Amino acid sequence: MKVQKFSISDAELVKSPGQDADIYVGNLVDERNGGPVSIGYGRYAPGQSLTKTMAVDDTMIVLEGRLSVSTSDGTVTAGPGTSFTCPRANPSPSRQRARVRRRPL
Amino acid sequence: MKVQKFSISDAELVKSPGQDADIYVGNLVDERNGGPVSIGYGRYAPGQSLTKTMAVDDTMIVLEGRLSVSTSDGTVTAGPGTSFTCPRANPSPSRQRARVRRRPL
Repeated sequence: MKVQKFSISDAELVKSPGQDADIYVGNLVDERNGGPVSIGYGRYAPGQSLTKTMAVDDTMIVLEGRLSVSTSDGTVTAGPGTSFTCPRANPSPSRQRARVRRRPL
Repeated sequence: MKVQKFSISDAELVKSPGQDADIYVGNLVDERNGGPVSIGYGRYAPGQSLTKTMAVDDTMIVLEGRLSVSTSDGTVTAGPGTSFTCPRANPSPSRQRARVRRRPL
C-alpha cells in the first residue's frame, strides 16, 4: 500500500448503521485494505445525536462545527482541530453499559 | 480510559527526533496509555521538510496550510480536511528504502 490522500468528497457517505438520525458516515480505508486501522469521514446535521456502544477504539477530529461526546463519566465538547479519543467499551458490566453520544452543537 | 479531548495547545511540542528542521511534534496518547494507537500534533514551519522511514502506519490530517508527502511512488499534496495514510515501510529491500517527505507549501 502506498501513500494515499482522502477528503470527505471521496467518501461514500451513508446513514450510520442502526440509526435514523441525519448522520452520514463513510470509510475510505478499513480491514479490507490490510491495514490496522480504519479511516473515514462523518457528517452530522445540526442537533443530531448518535448513541452507540464502542466496539473499537475510536479517534475523531472535528473539522467543522462543534461536537459533544458523552459517557457515564460526563460530557466533553469541542470545535475544529480538536481530537477525541473514545476507548472501546471495557468488558466490566458497568463499562459495557457506557454509551457514547455524539452531537454537533 | 475514558473519553478525552485534545488540541494542539495540549501537546508539548519538541523537535522531531533526529532532525533539525523547524518542525515540532508532540504525542498526547501513546503506548504508555495502553491503547493501540498514538495520537499527536505536529507544526511544520513554511518550507520545512522531514525525511524518514516509516516504522509504523501513520495517518495525518491537515488542519492548516498545505502538506506534501513524497515516496518513491510520487508526491501527493493537500490542504485542510485532507487525510494522508502512510503505510509502514514494506520489509522488501526496495520498500525499505522508500522515504516519506512531508513539506508544508
